[in-house]
Amino acid sequence: MADVTLGMVLEARERLKSIVRHTDLVPSRILSIPGKREVTLKTECLQLTGSFKVRGAYNMISHLPLHQRESGVIAASAGNHAQGVALAAQAFHINSTIVMPEGAPLAKIAATRDLGAEVVLHGLSFDDAMERARQIQMETGATFVHAFNDPLVVAGQGSIGLEIMDDSLNQIDTVVVPVGGGGMISGIAVAIKELHPNVRIIGVQAAGCPSMVKSMKKGEPTKIKSAATVADGIAVKAPGDLTYALCQKYVDQVVTVDEDEIANAILMLLEKCKIVAEGAGAVSVAAVMQEKFDTRGKICCVISGGNIDVTTLQLILDRGLMKAGRLTKVNTMIQDRPGRLHRLLAVISDAGANVVSIRHDRTNMQGGIGLAMLELVLETNHQQHLNDVLVAMQANGYKIL
Amino acid sequence: MADVTLGMVLEARERLKSIVRHTDLVPSRILSIPGKREVTLKTECLQLTGSFKVRGAYNMISHLPLHQRESGVIAASAGNHAQGVALAAQAFHINSTIVMPEGAPLAKIAATRDLGAEVVLHGLSFDDAMERARQIQMETGATFVHAFNDPLVVAGQGSIGLEIMDDSLNQIDTVVVPVGGGGMISGIAVAIKELHPNVRIIGVQAAGCPSMVKSMKKGEPTKIKSAATVADGIAVKAPGDLTYALCQKYVDQVVTVDEDEIANAILMLLEKCKIVAEGAGAVSVAAVMQEKFDTRGKICCVISGGNIDVTTLQLILDRGLMKAGRLTKVNTMIQDRPGRLHRLLAVISDAGANVVSIRHDRTNMQGGIGLAMLELVLETNHQQHLNDVLVAMQANGYKIL
Repeated sequence: MADVTLGMVLEARERLKSIVRHTDLVPSRILSIPGKREVTLKTECLQLTGSFKVRGAYNMISHLPLHQRESGVIAASAGNHAQGVALAAQAFHINSTIVMPEGAPLAKIAATRDLGAEVVLHGLSFDDAMERARQIQMETGATFVHAFNDPLVVAGQGSIGLEIMDDSLNQIDTVVVPVGGGGMISGIAVAIKELHPNVRIIGVQAAGCPSMVKSMKKGEPTKIKSAATVADGIAVKAPGDLTYALCQKYVDQVVTVDEDEIANAILMLLEKCKIVAEGAGAVSVAAVMQEKFDTRGKICCVISGGNIDVTTLQLILDRGLMKAGRLTKVNTMIQDRPGRLHRLLAVISDAGANVVSIRHDRTNMQGGIGLAMLELVLETNHQQHLNDVLVAMQANGYKIL
Repeated sequence: MADVTLGMVLEARERLKSIVRHTDLVPSRILSIPGKREVTLKTECLQLTGSFKVRGAYNMISHLPLHQRESGVIAASAGNHAQGVALAAQAFHINSTIVMPEGAPLAKIAATRDLGAEVVLHGLSFDDAMERARQIQMETGATFVHAFNDPLVVAGQGSIGLEIMDDSLNQIDTVVVPVGGGGMISGIAVAIKELHPNVRIIGVQAAGCPSMVKSMKKGEPTKIKSAATVADGIAVKAPGDLTYALCQKYVDQVVTVDEDEIANAILMLLEKCKIVAEGAGAVSVAAVMQEKFDTRGKICCVISGGNIDVTTLQLILDRGLMKAGRLTKVNTMIQDRPGRLHRLLAVISDAGANVVSIRHDRTNMQGGIGLAMLELVLETNHQQHLNDVLVAMQANGYKIL
């Protein structure tokens, strides 16, 4: 099996310099605890195309002999890899073809086309798209760019590790990295462990798709059946043999975070750090927030990407606000007479809550004649405040249904 | 009147080095147009406390003699200045008192307290809070830290200009800066114009609060009556005499952007640049997007801050999506019979739109007996797609009301 060496990562960094951003390491006060831990964020969401993927794709293409470049490159992806390959190919002025499943969001199709790629829509699943990409590759002689299981792709992602060590003046104890197929963490781990074996490398997966966790437990690359998570960027059902082996060798621990923990991290990053992270990008921060491992010392969380649909983001923000007791749907009943709604609203307002929306339903049968169902969405400051508002409502005779 | 010199700004930069972040200059592909303009973003939203304000406050306090520091500092603010002063005081281990109006959001009060400040809530308006702050200052001998009309505060904000020139290797033609009281743009303009007089400095205000525009037109600091804008960070009714004079001397042009343009810029920054900007922070980008001035060449937009409530952000995102034809409320009528709603949904789904919510009202009188009002919220890809969906509905006999 091919290997990835520190030399390959160092070479990748040099090759990437002309095109890829050296992203900023941003300290996070909110995640830090004085005397316990100091957290910085490696902001790959601010990388070109909104994710780290361009690093691996660019490094891989840069190694292709000129005559092979002429045939172009091809990849299958409905996500960040698509834009990474498209931008890298554009930088080398070569053709790229990206096969996406037919249901791919128009925004991602447009973004990939804008980078000069030919987008082929095929099939309903990622596997269908992958099969079609392999077919086109055979027909055209284009070079296939794998999203993670390729030594040059891994080496390219590894440049993130070198940047983290440089920018922190080697003052890092732990690096926390999202894990899907395992390409990014493999590269980062090679880069860091070969020079600084005492730095811990912690991987994080979504609990809804723990393929690397399962694989490491079983001792071989293992495919899991379903992948259900908001962190679609790391919903990869099996690691590659290369990335599995590298993780086995270099990674200290892989932990998981659940959907609420991910939503909470996305909300926190947005609200406190002013950074937009996609689900996959936020799992590293979620793992620190939930202390899924020993979080003492100087910690760097890699935010791998920020490509999240605005509508999805809004749902996640709603979920996060609800979870935090800041946005709540409350059902109650009032007498169906003039002035009664007004009276209830006075109680709520006096308790310091803000009414976001009201649904007033006179036709609901549940309450009996003379009563109207009321669905309120309330904005409160935190869980305790919400409790206070509900207690005030009850004290004034309103049942919480 | 006191003046601000390049030397004062250079000195401020050195004083700030130990505490303030040198924020990243992030290139923006989406705002750039090949052959026409190249845009970078100065990300002060990623500054400590989420805005640039700590620069001026820290510089000002650093000049206080030791015996004066002992009496602490005081400021009035419901916004970014509060946290900036609190953090700067904390860095010097001195007391800070921040007076806020009583309606201030709990999140901002908590954030300011977390930075060690004593928060005093007083009155209903900013003017009330300011008056109370002046009173407390007289009683305690604390030093008042003005949000903009102070030479040392202006010099501190000017460090942003030096960083922009350094990080762009002096390759900048135009710097675009949000303007409220005028402290930041004054400092940046002094820093840049004294060394590079050919660099254009463009100020941007919200059309709902154009105090600097009015002042420059009138030839003196002028107070406007109302300040209504989502860009609350720059809703300042009058510039200071110092900042007005500096803008008069150094700033090339001040333009305005309206509320929709601001909302659109916030949405674009979030979706494409993965950056959370508050209204005030996004006006510079809005001015470029709307080409409010000649946008040729290398342009740097200062994103001054990112402190926006999540619930406000959600409203702005909704508004932005609606404006872009991506989220739309559509009213129509259907016959109040089984299967009719199902049939309409099939038409919408075939046209490729996503139904976000439905309100079905049988009791509405408008349509007459046998008809039900329907309010749909539809998600579409863009304005043209929305038009196609509406045409498909009409072609199937549904009136758009």
